[in-house]
Amino acid sequence: MRRRSWWGWGWEDQAVGGNDLAAIAAAIAKRPGFENLDGEIANPPSPDDLDLRRPRIEAPPSIGAHTSAGNHDRASHSLGKAFRDVVRALAGDVTHPPDLVAYPSTEEHVVELLDWCASANVAAIPYGGGSSVVGGIEPRFADGGDGDFAGVVSIDLTGLDRVLEVDTVSRAARIQGGALGPVLEEQLKAHDYTLRHFPQSFEFSTLGGWLATRSGGHYATVYTHIDDLVESMRVVTPAGISESRRLPGSGAGPSPDRLFLGSEGSLGIITEAWMRVQDRVKFKASVSARFPTLQHAAEACRAIAQSALFPTNCRVLDGGEATSAGVIDGSSLLLVGFESADHPVDTLAQRAVELVTDHGGTVPDGIRSSSTEGAAGAWRNSFIRAPYGRDALTRLGIVVDTFETACTWADFPNLHAEVTAALTKAMDEVCGGGSITCRFTHVYPDGPAPYFTVMAPGRRGSQLAQWDELKAAAGDALLAAGGTITHHHAVGRDHHRWYDRQRPQPFAAALKAAKHALDPAGVLNPGVIVG
Amino acid sequence: MRRRSWWGWGWEDQAVGGNDLAAIAAAIAKRPGFENLDGEIANPPSPDDLDLRRPRIEAPPSIGAHTSAGNHDRASHSLGKAFRDVVRALAGDVTHPPDLVAYPSTEEHVVELLDWCASANVAAIPYGGGSSVVGGIEPRFADGGDGDFAGVVSIDLTGLDRVLEVDTVSRAARIQGGALGPVLEEQLKAHDYTLRHFPQSFEFSTLGGWLATRSGGHYATVYTHIDDLVESMRVVTPAGISESRRLPGSGAGPSPDRLFLGSEGSLGIITEAWMRVQDRVKFKASVSARFPTLQHAAEACRAIAQSALFPTNCRVLDGGEATSAGVIDGSSLLLVGFESADHPVDTLAQRAVELVTDHGGTVPDGIRSSSTEGAAGAWRNSFIRAPYGRDALTRLGIVVDTFETACTWADFPNLHAEVTAALTKAMDEVCGGGSITCRFTHVYPDGPAPYFTVMAPGRRGSQLAQWDELKAAAGDALLAAGGTITHHHAVGRDHHRWYDRQRPQPFAAALKAAKHALDPAGVLNPGVIVG
Repeated sequence: MRRRSWWGWGWEDQAVGGNDLAAIAAAIAKRPGFENLDGEIANPPSPDDLDLRRPRIEAPPSIGAHTSAGNHDRASHSLGKAFRDVVRALAGDVTHPPDLVAYPSTEEHVVELLDWCASANVAAIPYGGGSSVVGGIEPRFADGGDGDFAGVVSIDLTGLDRVLEVDTVSRAARIQGGALGPVLEEQLKAHDYTLRHFPQSFEFSTLGGWLATRSGGHYATVYTHIDDLVESMRVVTPAGISESRRLPGSGAGPSPDRLFLGSEGSLGIITEAWMRVQDRVKFKASVSARFPTLQHAAEACRAIAQSALFPTNCRVLDGGEATSAGVIDGSSLLLVGFESADHPVDTLAQRAVELVTDHGGTVPDGIRSSSTEGAAGAWRNSFIRAPYGRDALTRLGIVVDTFETACTWADFPNLHAEVTAALTKAMDEVCGGGSITCRFTHVYPDGPAPYFTVMAPGRRGSQLAQWDELKAAAGDALLAAGGTITHHHAVGRDHHRWYDRQRPQPFAAALKAAKHALDPAGVLNPGVIVG
Repeated sequence: MRRRSWWGWGWEDQAVGGNDLAAIAAAIAKRPGFENLDGEIANPPSPDDLDLRRPRIEAPPSIGAHTSAGNHDRASHSLGKAFRDVVRALAGDVTHPPDLVAYPSTEEHVVELLDWCASANVAAIPYGGGSSVVGGIEPRFADGGDGDFAGVVSIDLTGLDRVLEVDTVSRAARIQGGALGPVLEEQLKAHDYTLRHFPQSFEFSTLGGWLATRSGGHYATVYTHIDDLVESMRVVTPAGISESRRLPGSGAGPSPDRLFLGSEGSLGIITEAWMRVQDRVKFKASVSARFPTLQHAAEACRAIAQSALFPTNCRVLDGGEATSAGVIDGSSLLLVGFESADHPVDTLAQRAVELVTDHGGTVPDGIRSSSTEGAAGAWRNSFIRAPYGRDALTRLGIVVDTFETACTWADFPNLHAEVTAALTKAMDEVCGGGSITCRFTHVYPDGPAPYFTVMAPGRRGSQLAQWDELKAAAGDALLAAGGTITHHHAVGRDHHRWYDRQRPQPFAAALKAAKHALDPAGVLNPGVIVG
């Protein structure tokens, strides 16, 4: 059976290795600034060889049958999939493993688990696909330690993975929170439906995880976050089960769902949701436009975002990012894609081309009828493979990471300049050089969601400390320039200090009070969202 | 200077009177079931003649300059604009007037007012345009009485009515919460922008009121609620000012704005918001389609709602409602309108016509290039005038009201049947007959927002008791059939008992805790949202 990597991204068998890894090492060594890499390749230890501390707790008999204290289970639930997780896993540095991993297969199991955790002072970390890149599922509490808990249980929800009901009239489906992307799509396909929520982590993240972290998906406009596809949610909290009505819209008080969306496991565990699903796409049209500069591409993108043409894809790539789409002349790209299950979209694409041309862009390939071809297709494949490449670079001793934000169109040029300058300075000081590239993942009428990729030569053994400095420079620059610490990667533990600075303090106080009402023992994902 | 009606809808000079009123009375008397109306016309007392109880409190000198204890001010801030408000005003039944009306003209005034209210145990009712139809701004507290407060101040925010800043790059504007619809549109027009939020109450409601009640506006799809046009908000709470960042999107924790949207003055007073504004519309296309039954029209409407054509208008009218659009053969109507500031919308309208035809509809007038003409235009004018007509009917002793909901497409046929049956039965028992009609105001891929209008012959002096019974029948039927007690009229005091039944109880507990954190003295709009 195919196995998930305990230390890195995705499938074990997809990790870059052998000749591919050697080729990457050789290519990287030729890049300016990267000449002094030591040529070593870090290899992950086997989880069986990890000297994990002994479990401090034991589950009561009623729960014990659904739990494991095995090394592989505990090691693979200790860390997320961020750069800093991979570095630590490669070093065998797993200092805060969960004491137990629970595998509930029914909602009753979840209720029992939370009851036990609350009564026994055991921290409960909801775990979906484990793809957090912000320390969201890591048992690391106050001051980076264990907190005052008797122990920690990681609650792996992937046993709750069924599409329970499909409403073909309202085009909605009731889906369990632990369903991984491909697992729920497979079940929806039997009804000719799709959720069409495709974050980069699609294969390795769950519906509940998407909802808990306000995941950003396939749609570049309108339905950018998973939030917009929710009809109702069912959440197990220590104070009882919170289930909202199936309503397409409501004006009855503040939205109950919006309290739990983005709560990152701190308020409850999402066991089910009614989701708006989509008919399968029949019509597509896409445009790959080139621009002399990033700002030219951004201006055209703004015009499209403000046009109400509602493209499904609307992605800007700067000159550096464009190379992965096969464009190597330094041009910035704007990839615009339309799709519909109902009607041809060529007219919309034609108007997008007009807007591109008005803003100084060229469209060498014209309008394509499928968005899976051309530069967009090349870029898409590279997008899905990127985290495996990130792991390969990490093993070579490189510091590599991505971070994302959102800001107004008015703020973007300055934010881009300030973030680039701050990172360039930090990389120079800490790593002796490096590169930073930028793309837009989603766009709104009032602003884009810029996404940055940084890559710098690391020093073996100092990668984490180097990363910490780059991350601090990035976070501070983002906030100073008017952005958010995250558009769709979530807050977790790694973003908390910036999150706490950016949110309104009265709101933080309200949220803390709400948390105390729902989780009086404070056992749910401690330190996340409510600090 | 033109004056607002203290007792009824809108402008004093627009109230139906004289020959028009007599004509309505004559026409109504011919309708089956309405033959026994007494022919009397109730006339509102002058506010100067009302024997309002003496103010129980006096504002401290620093605040006193911005307050009034005058009869007209107090009377016109005592009641909203629902049927039951008009009946009571006509009877001079103003038993719970605010002791004072405050007219802050700066945010500092608002802060001072809330500080005073919290320290002196004075209930504070935020008042925008006063168009609530759910008892949202009425000083009626525990058990319909005065509660344990020393007094009540109604805080009229219409002095904070400026567009403070316009960002022409991000297409957003910073607007004060007290700006009435026409006041903010006039200021935006100077920049060639429009908010395009046009609830029926547009002239008599404010931005802050829209945000606090999750108002439903112009757009029938996508941006149905004002929520969807918000970039950031600034809210004065007793625990401090909560200001969210200007972000087009964010995934950093639960949305701060979504906590205050729909809070109806119970958590704070919205003094400013950055709103996404629109370019002025250049292209329009509209379609008026006829169907043999409501369910046929609903099916076509569903197809359009699920097509992602994103019409601006997408309104179903049953045979009864269609008469106000000049269609008197019993046909149900579907009015579909597209608009754009950027591109022609004829292709979209053509596809809508195909979907109409596929579902058994006819389009006798074809596609019109302006949505202000034809049946849609006739209906629109009648829509704006409707509340004045409601006041006229009320004066004639009729029981007349509207209520709205949302449900899934799968639930709609049953909800419509159950609500119609429950109301018909209640009207028969309580009023000896009456009529009920239905339209859709907004539609979603997963369901419509049905809006019902009821009209029954009342008994002079018993109109309120009759209304209570009809309202109870309606609310119970809506909830039993899977709907929400409100899609955009809000909760206020009149909907609270159903709201409390429909929301998840853990969420209610969380909200109560959040309220206590923000308003520890419990002075903000007591009894609303947090019961």
